[in-house]
Amino acid sequence: MKLAVVEGDGIGKEVIPAAIEVLDSLGLDVEKIPVELGYGKWERTGSAITDEDIDTLKECDCVFFGAVTTPPDPNYKSVLLTIRKELDMYANIRPIRPLPSVKGIHERNDFNFIIVRENTEGLYSGIEEIGTDISTTKRVVTRKGSKRIADYACKLAKSRMNKLTIVHKSNVMKSDKLFLDVSRQSAIDTGVLHRDELVDSFAYNLITSPWNYDVIVTTNLFGDILSDMSGALVGGLGLLPSANIGEKYAFFEPVHGSAPDIAGNNRANPVAAILSLKMLLEWHGDLAEAAIVEEAIDVALNMGICTPDLGGKHTTSEVGNTIAKYIRTK
Amino acid sequence: MKLAVVEGDGIGKEVIPAAIEVLDSLGLDVEKIPVELGYGKWERTGSAITDEDIDTLKECDCVFFGAVTTPPDPNYKSVLLTIRKELDMYANIRPIRPLPSVKGIHERNDFNFIIVRENTEGLYSGIEEIGTDISTTKRVVTRKGSKRIADYACKLAKSRMNKLTIVHKSNVMKSDKLFLDVSRQSAIDTGVLHRDELVDSFAYNLITSPWNYDVIVTTNLFGDILSDMSGALVGGLGLLPSANIGEKYAFFEPVHGSAPDIAGNNRANPVAAILSLKMLLEWHGDLAEAAIVEEAIDVALNMGICTPDLGGKHTTSEVGNTIAKYIRTK
Ligand SMILES: CC(C)[C@H](C(=O)O)[C@@H](O)C(=O)O
Ligand SMILES: CC(C)[C@H](C(=O)O)[C@@H](O)C(=O)O
Repeated sequence: MKLAVVEGDGIGKEVIPAAIEVLDSLGLDVEKIPVELGYGKWERTGSAITDEDIDTLKECDCVFFGAVTTPPDPNYKSVLLTIRKELDMYANIRPIRPLPSVKGIHERNDFNFIIVRENTEGLYSGIEEIGTDISTTKRVVTRKGSKRIADYACKLAKSRMNKLTIVHKSNVMKSDKLFLDVSRQSAIDTGVLHRDELVDSFAYNLITSPWNYDVIVTTNLFGDILSDMSGALVGGLGLLPSANIGEKYAFFEPVHGSAPDIAGNNRANPVAAILSLKMLLEWHGDLAEAAIVEEAIDVALNMGICTPDLGGKHTTSEVGNTIAKYIRTK
Repeated sequence: MKLAVVEGDGIGKEVIPAAIEVLDSLGLDVEKIPVELGYGKWERTGSAITDEDIDTLKECDCVFFGAVTTPPDPNYKSVLLTIRKELDMYANIRPIRPLPSVKGIHERNDFNFIIVRENTEGLYSGIEEIGTDISTTKRVVTRKGSKRIADYACKLAKSRMNKLTIVHKSNVMKSDKLFLDVSRQSAIDTGVLHRDELVDSFAYNLITSPWNYDVIVTTNLFGDILSDMSGALVGGLGLLPSANIGEKYAFFEPVHGSAPDIAGNNRANPVAAILSLKMLLEWHGDLAEAAIVEEAIDVALNMGICTPDLGGKHTTSEVGNTIAKYIRTK
């Protein structure tokens, strides 16, 4: 496997090395291609990502990505959004599953759901008119975009509990009716049990009864908000992995950002990055390796080897190191 | 005071009468003008709200509103959105405060924040292009709209802890930069301590650390999602009141909807409606009456007089009745 490795900025430079140590411990045949992207590169070279960088990413089998900082400069083009667009990765997959010995807001931990977020349109269209007195953003919902994400979610649901929840706000935005109709049709065509919920009361229901959900499909910005919100269910934003998947390319990254406030102290939680690595291994078909990574994470957390966000005293590298060591003994 | 009373549909027909019993127990000089609006009226007459209805609402000092059902018919014009627009009620005020003896997701109950939701623009612009293959909604942010809601929020913050959090997604939607800039300026001009947060990580922070917030100002749909989500903090959607305020008009309603699934059984929780009545009394300057309503709610809940959603065995009318009775003894 040819793997593009992007540390990015801030804590990306800490969690990715920790996860790479874990990858190395598996002894797989991986060619790692380091790619520098982000704010640091922009400061140094005047551009955060170049056409050649995109080409490099496309030449690899997949991308392992940390986090990048986005400055509030209106001319700065978001690296993450550029990559998602250029690689046409339409599905953003965000599994929410509690880890042993980390408590979220509930006593019960018998939940396990996946947010399937449409990743190319909605409010991320980039179609904006910016003025002094009025600024607008066009929210775009297409039949094609809705169908491919709904089909993806239905396929995923079939491999799990066969339950799909379609999240929308079509009582206010008639444009969401298209998303809802297409998603329903896809669920009917594939024989997936489904229901739909309005995003506002859904946010309440997901927080209070996460055990009621299996696969959730929604539009871009709703998926963004709902997945961060769900971090509260599992005990922290530092625990959420994600995959961005397209027809041709795949890209794995922790849900969290570059966290400039804690960067540079070797105290960022690498678990989200290591769980993203686990998703990468599963996607690549290395199922045994993925399972052992998960087991090793559980062992480390059960031993209390964790970073300060989880109440621990360990550094980013110590957590990565413990997990890698456990894997090497297997 | 001349008060328009709109029961609406579903559980609106149950919680409003319960709240009106509470109002009556206060012995205030109130002329109640019943106004029929909503789905039931639409089925009966072909229109859910007429121009005359709007005129009636405008002739009253304020409106007390239950909930209405919106059918999935694309030609049906939302009653609530019509009223908000026609009465130009730009501020949607949603206080989140735990009640004694009702537990939300946290042990701690030392939080008390208010979501100030812009109520006239954003994704509720109604500017849409609906097609078979592509549908769009225009998200509109104006300087004027942002300034009046930010000024409202700052004024409110000054009467409280003087702390404002501005919630936006300007890293993706450049249109939110206008909202952010105007809100910041308003906070600076009025001397309010402020910070801003991105809506995704803010959703996480609000759920995990609600005690860090005082007044929150945000755009229309974010306010919609975040306030329902916050129901989890106080133990239920049946506990959240709201006020819609404009230059000329004011309108008070529970945050919850018409809940057709439980309607007709006299088991809906009237507390959100009664707390909305309390907001109405405060707005009208009846501060002593507002305080006694709050005290009476606390007494009823402490006695275990509550509806099934809170684990109780009591009906909607029994809860209203208990609260009204307590007030009459004072
Ligand atoms: C950094 C930002 C552009 C991004 C998004 O909004 O999609 C992030 O929040 C995410 O969820 O991956
Ligand atoms: C019913 C619906 C139109 C409304 C909204 O989206 O504003 C409701 O959810 C609310 O929060 O008052």
